[in-house]
Formats: sequence, C-alpha cells, structure tokens
Amino acid sequence: MALTTAFTTSLGLRHPIALAPMGGSAGGALAAAVSNGGGLGMVGGGRGDRDWLRHELALLTGQTTSPWGIGFLAWGVDVETVAWALEYQPAAMMLSFGDPAPFAERVRDAGAQLVVQVTDLDEARRALDVGADVIVAQGTEAGGHGGAGRGTLPFVPAVVDLASPVPVLAAGGIADGRGLAAALVLGAAGALLGTRFQASREALVPPQLTEALLHGRGEDTVRSRTLDVARGAPWPERYPARTLRNAFLERWHGREAELSRNAAARQEFRAAAERDDIDYVPVWAGEALDLITEIRPAADIVTDLATEAERALASGGHR
Amino acid sequence: MALTTAFTTSLGLRHPIALAPMGGSAGGALAAAVSNGGGLGMVGGGRGDRDWLRHELALLTGQTTSPWGIGFLAWGVDVETVAWALEYQPAAMMLSFGDPAPFAERVRDAGAQLVVQVTDLDEARRALDVGADVIVAQGTEAGGHGGAGRGTLPFVPAVVDLASPVPVLAAGGIADGRGLAAALVLGAAGALLGTRFQASREALVPPQLTEALLHGRGEDTVRSRTLDVARGAPWPERYPARTLRNAFLERWHGREAELSRNAAARQEFRAAAERDDIDYVPVWAGEALDLITEIRPAADIVTDLATEAERALASGGHR
Ligand SMILES: Cc1cc2nc3c(=O)[nH]c(=O)nc-3n(C[C@H](O)[C@H](O)[C@H](O)COP(=O)(O)O)c2cc1C
Ligand SMILES: Cc1cc2nc3c(=O)[nH]c(=O)nc-3n(C[C@H](O)[C@H](O)[C@H](O)COP(=O)(O)O)c2cc1C
Repeated sequence: MALTTAFTTSLGLRHPIALAPMGGSAGGALAAAVSNGGGLGMVGGGRGDRDWLRHELALLTGQTTSPWGIGFLAWGVDVETVAWALEYQPAAMMLSFGDPAPFAERVRDAGAQLVVQVTDLDEARRALDVGADVIVAQGTEAGGHGGAGRGTLPFVPAVVDLASPVPVLAAGGIADGRGLAAALVLGAAGALLGTRFQASREALVPPQLTEALLHGRGEDTVRSRTLDVARGAPWPERYPARTLRNAFLERWHGREAELSRNAAARQEFRAAAERDDIDYVPVWAGEALDLITEIRPAADIVTDLATEAERALASGGHR
Repeated sequence: MALTTAFTTSLGLRHPIALAPMGGSAGGALAAAVSNGGGLGMVGGGRGDRDWLRHELALLTGQTTSPWGIGFLAWGVDVETVAWALEYQPAAMMLSFGDPAPFAERVRDAGAQLVVQVTDLDEARRALDVGADVIVAQGTEAGGHGGAGRGTLPFVPAVVDLASPVPVLAAGGIADGRGLAAALVLGAAGALLGTRFQASREALVPPQLTEALLHGRGEDTVRSRTLDVARGAPWPERYPARTLRNAFLERWHGREAELSRNAAARQEFRAAAERDDIDYVPVWAGEALDLITEIRPAADIVTDLATEAERALASGGHR
C-alpha cells in the first residue's frame, strides 16, 4: 500500500512528505536526498542570497532528477530573485511568512506549483485568494519561525475545511510516521517536516548544534523574539522563532526592547555567535525533538516515515 | 469495524472516547449521556463540592448502567472527599493538575481505574510512578486549565513512548472524528474531549455562554491567568486557563499582579460575573472551537466521533 494523495499525485511523488525549506540548512544535498527518497526536497532560499543558491542549486540538480522545490521568506525576498530562481525550473515554489501576492503570477507563469505556508486562518484565506496550489498549515509546535497562536492538531482540519479541494500539508511537531499518519487522517495531503531533517546527515548544521538537537527535548524549546533581536534580524514581530532555550535567551526573554537598545549585550552576542556558541546562537528546533534520537540519512528518514505511517494507519484503533 | 483499544477493553466501552470531567458543567446528565453513547462519561467534581456531587451522581446513576467516572482537581480536593466519592463505585477516578500520590491507594483499593491527566513529561513520569492505569496527555490547545508548553500532536507520542504499555488518552484540540483518528494513529488508546461536549445539549452551561461557544473561533481563545486572578480562584500558577478572549481579559492580561491588588476592578468583575456577563466571565474553550458549529446531544457526538474516526482511518492517505 502506498500513501497516495492529491499532493503526491500532482507533483509525482512517491511519498506525501516535504522537506521544509530551512534557510541556510536545507541546501542542495539535503533537498536532493529527500527528493531521491521519494519526498519533495526544497532548498531553503531564505531572503534570497543568489551566490549561496547558485551553489546549492548546482549541487541539487547534479544529484537528482526527481521533483524538487525552493522556498523563500515572503517578507524578505524580492520578486526579481524569485523570478531568477524559477529559471532553475523547480516543481514547487514555496513562500512563507508574509504576503504571497507579489509572487503568485510569476510562479504560475513558470509552471511551478505555488506552495504557501500559513499560520492562521486569515493567512490561509489570503493564500487561497492568490491561487495557492498547496497550503502548508503550520502549528506553533514547529521549529524555527512561525505563529504563536495555533496548535497543529486542531489547526490542520480547520484549514482543510477552508481550503478543500486545495491540498493542505501539516507542519509543526511531526517527526515520525505516527505524526505523518495523524496529518493524513486530519485531512491533510501530507506533511512538511523541518526539525526531523535538521537532524539528518545532509543538513548544513554545525556539529555542536547537531549535538544540541540530539540532546534537546521538546520542553527545552521556546518560541521567542529574543535571539532575532540579538542578531538584528528584521523578522516581523508576529513570527517569533522556536529554538532551544539557552543562557542568553533566558537572560533577555521578555526584555527585547531593552536588548535592542543595549549595544554591549548585542556585541557580546555577535562575538559568541561567530564561534557558534550554543549558549547564544539560535538552535532552531520544534517540540518534536522528543521523537528524534539519531542523525540519519535524509532519504532513510523519508522511507521510514512512509513505512511507519502506513503501519500506524493500518493498526490505528486496534491496540 | 470498531475502534478497540486497551482503554475500551479494560473499561468495557464501545468507543475510545472520554468526557473530560469539567468542573460544574459535566454533571450527571452529560456524563450519563456520554456513557450511554458508548464512551466514558465523567462527572466534573472540581475541588469536591459534596452537595453538588450528591445531586449529580444521583442523576447519573439513575440514567445509566454503563461504566462512568468522576474527576477531581488534585491540587484542590482532599483525600476524604475522594474516598467518599469512591463509594458511588465509579469505574474510573481521574485526577488532574497536581500530585496524584495522596489519592492513588484509595482509588486502587476501591477497584476503580486511576486516570491521571498530565501536561508535561515530568508529570507523566510521576503518574506512572504512582501506578496510574490510564494517562491523559493534555496539550495546550485544550480548553480550560492546563499547561502552556506542549502541543497535543508531538506531546502524545512522547507520552506514549514513556508510558507504554499503560494506555494514553490524547486531550486538547480534538472535536471531531479526524482528531480522534489522529489520537489513535499517534499511539493513544483514545481521546478525552472537553470543549466539544461543553457545546452539547446536556452540559450545564448558561445559554449566553453556549452562544459564545458557537460563535467563537480557535483563534479567539487564549491561555491566561487573568480571569482566575479576577475570580480569586487559587489555581496554581503553572496551569493558566484557555478561554475566549473578552473585554476584561484583554484589559488585564499580563497585569495580573496589579489586578490582584485592585479591589475595585475585582469588585467590578464579581458584579458582572453574577449576571454571567461574557465580557467578564471565563468562557473556557479550546482551539477546536473552529470545528464546532452546533449544539448536539452528547450521545450523538460520541457515535458520530467514532463513525467519522473509522472513516478517516480507512481513507487516510488515499485522497
Ligand atoms: C532550522 C529551521 C529553519 C527554518 N527555516 C525556515 C525558512 O527559512 N523558511 C520557512 O518557510 N520555514 C522555515 N522553517 C519552518 C518550517 O518551514 C516548518 O514550518 C517547520 O520546520 C515545521 O515544524 P517542525 O520543525 O516541527 O517539523 C524552519 C524550521 C527549522 C526547524
Ligand atoms: C469548560 C471546561 C472545564 C474544564 N474543567 C476541568 C476540570 O474541572 N478538571 C479537569 O481535569 N479538566 C478540566 N478541563 C480540561 C479537560 O480535562 C481537558 O483537558 C480539555 O477539555 C481537553 O481539551 P479540549 O477542550 O480541546 O477537548 C476543562 C475543560 C473545559 C473546556
């Protein structure tokens, strides 16, 4: 039995699984591995650093002939860069955290599927209005940036009811086949995973951060703006990021305005960040950390997710 | 096909569904209706008002011969009251929000199943240590009081991995058969629902609150201590309550210490609460409100949940 959904069919995938386009860490090797495993690998384009993308997309296209995608931050990328990236002919172009409208037509004209990540029902309505082909419904359990208001389990069916027949992917808190199976029975056409793939062999993550991911637990994570303020990252206030707690975050959490005025503290942060000191830098990770105990090749993660999900669906309600 | 789990088997239930013992609103009629529908009805004993319980338990035992239970707040009830309630021979005794240890032996001696609701992994470990027969893993999407830290979708499998073979019920954000199916594939032996049954014909809820539930959306809810402070309810700080936002809450949210010192504001609150003014009183409700569009008889809710969950399990991954 295979898990066939509107998402797998329209993109020609073996499994209803997508790699979150994690800025900087989801490079060409990781995206290719996920696509080769039968999911949809997506390169994390962030705000659109073309040099980085050129390098990673060359890697990617050298390593896979399966469908793949690119993701950008809608609040931080410009239309020209998205148009430029579309020349690489991704099967999917994902836009998160901001208004997708300026990009929609270019994506459509290029023949790529428009994937839009949303964090509340208003954003979901907006994504449908601009003609999204796939909606990613992200709950607050998710690693990295996102909304603070909605839990994945009740949010996904609410988005499904709104979006149907447009396929919805569930995101936030999914790291094993049970979570993927849950996404499917909630009515989603698949799941998009970040944290699980962050702890994969191919992710571009410094070793001390990988260690921290393996030792961290879901309850060690917190959603906060503190480290963005420390970094001077111009993220919109409505999208705080879930990271592991660390000493710097604990010290400044809830005092972001003060931190933004404290040049010495931000200088201390920058110096520590240069050596990837995990008492300072954001280790973006979601609540699903509890379910992650080893670093694995990304393609194996994909096939295990699918196999476990099939098993969970077959046995659900009979134990 | 029926949804048979360790929970249904050990308690002799037709469906893996439990009514949350909602203090004051889950009275005898609602608990009986859920039990008669094939789930586990539980009366909301709160801190243990014996007069109220005597009345509701008489109603209950007059209306059902199926298994049923009672729930108390572990931080607020005394051992004698629990012992007294056990004389009514409930099949299950649930303890939430506090240390279950003082009650465990009495429950076991009475031959009732000990059900413990937990909001993080430490509480889950503690519940297992005292010999809980069933663990309810509650995510922060839940209506009413609870933890602020864990989302249901990733929390449930983490508790399942810890507790196995002790059965786990998922709670928080579940209001339809898709959510129940998700609970089962996550490894839970069933689901415990509050908000969905709060909007049932038998719930003891004033009409203007019922109206508010029907019109409220998941994103209109917030987890906060404000209204407990206003009421002077001695809830432990670690269990804020999810309610609909209202004017009083918006005014005082984040300024709880100030509110507790402001006698005039609390007097204003008390006067408004006496007329059940929904701009003041807590309308406890969870994020699953999006999925609730009508008031229904509780037994119908139970059977529809089961039927829909079976359908979701059968079709999951094939749409
Ligand atoms: C390390 C990391 C970086 C992320 N970066 C991005 C990003 O650049 N763009 C984006 O749309 N989402 C980003 N996300 C969020 C994901 O798209 C996704 O919503 C999330 O990872 C899903 O939750 P999970 O981490 O529990 O799987 C990131 C997530 C993580 C963990
Ligand atoms: C109106 C209301 C009152 C509640 N009262 C109690 C209570 O007295 N004792 C308790 O253990 N849980 C109580 N809860 C929490 C439930 O046990 C349960 O965790 C929650 O309802 C599950 O989430 P849901 O509301 O999304 O179904 C209450 C919930 C609601 C909605």
